[in-house]
Amino acid sequence: MHILILGAAGMVGRKLTGQLLRDGRLGKQDIARMTLQDVVAPAKPDSSIPIKVVASDFADAGAAPLIAERPDVIFHLAAIVSGEAEAEFDKGYRINLDGTRYLIDAIRAVGGGYKPRLVFTSSIAVFGAPFPEKIGDEFFHTPLTSYGTQKSICELLINDYTRKGLLDGISIRLPTICVRPGKPNKAASGFFSNIMREPLAGEEAVLPVSEDVRHWHASPKSAVGFLLHAGTMDLNAMGARRNLSMPGMSVSVGEQIAALDRVAGKNVTARIKRVPDPTIISIVSGWPRDFVTDRALKLGFTTAEKTFDDIIRIHIADELGGKFAA
Amino acid sequence: MHILILGAAGMVGRKLTGQLLRDGRLGKQDIARMTLQDVVAPAKPDSSIPIKVVASDFADAGAAPLIAERPDVIFHLAAIVSGEAEAEFDKGYRINLDGTRYLIDAIRAVGGGYKPRLVFTSSIAVFGAPFPEKIGDEFFHTPLTSYGTQKSICELLINDYTRKGLLDGISIRLPTICVRPGKPNKAASGFFSNIMREPLAGEEAVLPVSEDVRHWHASPKSAVGFLLHAGTMDLNAMGARRNLSMPGMSVSVGEQIAALDRVAGKNVTARIKRVPDPTIISIVSGWPRDFVTDRALKLGFTTAEKTFDDIIRIHIADELGGKFAA
Repeated sequence: MHILILGAAGMVGRKLTGQLLRDGRLGKQDIARMTLQDVVAPAKPDSSIPIKVVASDFADAGAAPLIAERPDVIFHLAAIVSGEAEAEFDKGYRINLDGTRYLIDAIRAVGGGYKPRLVFTSSIAVFGAPFPEKIGDEFFHTPLTSYGTQKSICELLINDYTRKGLLDGISIRLPTICVRPGKPNKAASGFFSNIMREPLAGEEAVLPVSEDVRHWHASPKSAVGFLLHAGTMDLNAMGARRNLSMPGMSVSVGEQIAALDRVAGKNVTARIKRVPDPTIISIVSGWPRDFVTDRALKLGFTTAEKTFDDIIRIHIADELGGKFAA
Repeated sequence: MHILILGAAGMVGRKLTGQLLRDGRLGKQDIARMTLQDVVAPAKPDSSIPIKVVASDFADAGAAPLIAERPDVIFHLAAIVSGEAEAEFDKGYRINLDGTRYLIDAIRAVGGGYKPRLVFTSSIAVFGAPFPEKIGDEFFHTPLTSYGTQKSICELLINDYTRKGLLDGISIRLPTICVRPGKPNKAASGFFSNIMREPLAGEEAVLPVSEDVRHWHASPKSAVGFLLHAGTMDLNAMGARRNLSMPGMSVSVGEQIAALDRVAGKNVTARIKRVPDPTIISIVSGWPRDFVTDRALKLGFTTAEKTFDDIIRIHIADELGGKFAA
């Protein structure tokens, strides 16, 4: 089996790559080779499995050479984040929309019965306020950002191309990933992770919203689990609706901090500084707070965590070698 | 006021043009000039209002010269129909999706505060089965055709471009238009009109489905009314959600025929021949049957008819000069 990961240098891409290499297989099939693509060439992991790393901008038809090698499973994680897509209108449409179209048209162009599994990472940004307290599986696309619009459109395209038998696609809407390791990116959602990650590393972090802000989270470990399941499950059970919201956990910022207190103590939570930011408060007010994800649960998608304490413990175990700055 | 109609040679386009010329104004503003575009140049109506007719394929950036003249209101009716978009995949995406993107990007490119009203005709084909018996205002996009996918995507694009202040857009999902005058087109929905129009003209018509098939209809007169209202109303009341389903009437084929019997008599209904067509039966089984359109009604959209008898009478009055073949 040949696996292609687009956007492999990103946080989720690297974790997915690592898990696949550790497993040596996807579902019941051994991995014969992997191709890792990103705008900047991903670091080549040390592995007995042959790995090709490719630096390309696939929004300029750069996907075609990768697709010509007929990968069996394609994980499409490549995108620019919401803040950047909002600030740079053309770039957002070029990468987040046209890039996906180039990709699916390149798949279609191969022909000869080639019909790979395509796993596309969509986002809860396809929903914007006002919405019900819990967003169900049949709530409509109401994006309030260009990023959310682009993700919505890609979901619809992948459904249609799948329906036409041109590929075997699924779009999974990831919750906000928490605790996101590494450095902050341009996402306005950064603080949800910053206020956990930085204090655990002995650093101060800024909380720009009030503690009653509620949001929808899953660990990086859960995100990788969703992708692996989407890459192997029988998609026929989904019918023509190949897009759906992934399970997650609805917690308030106050509950996040209480969990951090339980897991790491008051010295750690004392490193969170409250500095309200009206811009971020306004952006976040339009974000989903909670979901009913019955459809995903029924289709076998499960999270790796039961409580937000688990999310923090996963971060300490996977990113900090089991230790934090007490 | 300068009005541009894209797809002006089509049935709705011609009726809209006629109504605008008869009114001489749109809302409170006099019409100073009109531009009528289609792939084949629309017939130039006789009017004291200056009219330019243009033949262009605006899916190949042909919209830019029309937009450069800065029309105040643009009615975008141009599309290929569902059957054709399904049979010709590339053509459907080129005209129904790329064409709209060229259009909105041409609007954006004008700059200098140019922000025209854009009225886009979407379709109930954005919904496909399974759905509730009555589809509400918050049901999600579930197209089962490429045409419905393309309309869904255009709705999302127009919402985002409007949110970004690049235009002042609205997408209205028209019910199936009945009684559609003229000749059958490639739409699989053709029989809903054929079984009314042809018998009234003294011709036989084929009914390919059973009489219990229920569907969502509005007269051409109502469609023109929706467009005029969308062209003049204050869209700020809609917030970021500039896409919505129009009012209509849910009737079964049996109820259509009963209405035809009441209005025109048994000699006319006897011209309907039952010839079941498994392909059409299958296509139609995935189509919406009924809607709750509270949002449109609240925003002032109203139909011209109260019963299906009215729909038939509108056809006899507007298309047959008040007479039919008894």
